[in-house]
Amino acid sequence: MCPHALIPYKPVNPKTRLSNVLDPEEREAFARAMLDDVIAVVKDASCTPVVVGSELYDSDDVQITVKDADLNQALNEILPQAVDKVLIIMADLPLADTPSVRRVLATEKDMAIVPGRGGGTNVIYVREPSRFRVDYYGTSFLKHLKIAREAGLSCEVIDSFRLHTDIDEKEDLVEVLIHGTGKSRAYLDQLGFFLSVDQGRVSVERKR
Amino acid sequence: MCPHALIPYKPVNPKTRLSNVLDPEEREAFARAMLDDVIAVVKDASCTPVVVGSELYDSDDVQITVKDADLNQALNEILPQAVDKVLIIMADLPLADTPSVRRVLATEKDMAIVPGRGGGTNVIYVREPSRFRVDYYGTSFLKHLKIAREAGLSCEVIDSFRLHTDIDEKEDLVEVLIHGTGKSRAYLDQLGFFLSVDQGRVSVERKR
Repeated sequence: MCPHALIPYKPVNPKTRLSNVLDPEEREAFARAMLDDVIAVVKDASCTPVVVGSELYDSDDVQITVKDADLNQALNEILPQAVDKVLIIMADLPLADTPSVRRVLATEKDMAIVPGRGGGTNVIYVREPSRFRVDYYGTSFLKHLKIAREAGLSCEVIDSFRLHTDIDEKEDLVEVLIHGTGKSRAYLDQLGFFLSVDQGRVSVERKR
Repeated sequence: MCPHALIPYKPVNPKTRLSNVLDPEEREAFARAMLDDVIAVVKDASCTPVVVGSELYDSDDVQITVKDADLNQALNEILPQAVDKVLIIMADLPLADTPSVRRVLATEKDMAIVPGRGGGTNVIYVREPSRFRVDYYGTSFLKHLKIAREAGLSCEVIDSFRLHTDIDEKEDLVEVLIHGTGKSRAYLDQLGFFLSVDQGRVSVERKR
């Protein structure tokens, strides 16, 4: 009853599109804070987190180290071996909360999927992992729907902005400051980020 | 049992941030297509649409014409007079579907709210409209939570990317082409918009 939650994670030089507001050490610390938030939420939703990455990092959580950094290849080697249902959740979802993850796990279909902004895929839940394979990058949401259809798997699309909102760019930090409650939010506060409103548009600025 | 759904709508020179991809006539037609999608969905969710705007437009739907174009003033004149529960839903939510609107209406709290991207407010549902007032623009989501708290109104935040995704800029059109099924999507198809993938990033292009 405790599905494994695979969490792809890149500890070295992550989140390069945040380079305009965070230096390399800060990007690593922020990526780690987001991972910690996701781990806390999946544990609270009764999943067992398994961090999937190209390098080990300092943590007590279960980790799988893969030689090749390619996300698709790594996951598609793991899925056929999985003996029970699997959740795959991205590490850059600091707005994830327990109710949203539980909505995914509660699907009555063969699988559930949460689209990311811009055509991506943020969460996949599949009851029989050996019948599915992943194909991330580009319009992966549409590709995953097609893979499910071709495999004869019924699929529910979960309507959640908390799981839809992946954090890649400066403007995404607005969402963390408005809706975040975990370590990621605390880290941005600590770095001096705050919301700023100019002509009705909201952005973030940083005290230096 | 049929709450009024107030839909603020600007028929003239709407969606100026889409000027880089749509000419003025196309922006008006696209705004109208999005409005039609929202109207269809609120009707399907058993609400009575009431379009609130500064000018009349050609339609059979109930309309309120307000002299002043300021959204806050217009709505705050209507709310105290409302005798029953009210939904306020923006006209630029072409991903809205009946289940997401029904989740809003099903709240057990005094009111429900759906945040928009960037701190905005896309949907408000309030059982006793005379106890609430709106304050759009800027971080209106946070302002609305505060107004509710100060009025002693319990408030549920509805977690929906379909109602979270307002369409303002070119990159938002990706979402319409991926998740849209109504008139807005059909209009973009008709204009020749299509998804394009470059180095894993998804955007829209237009056949000319």
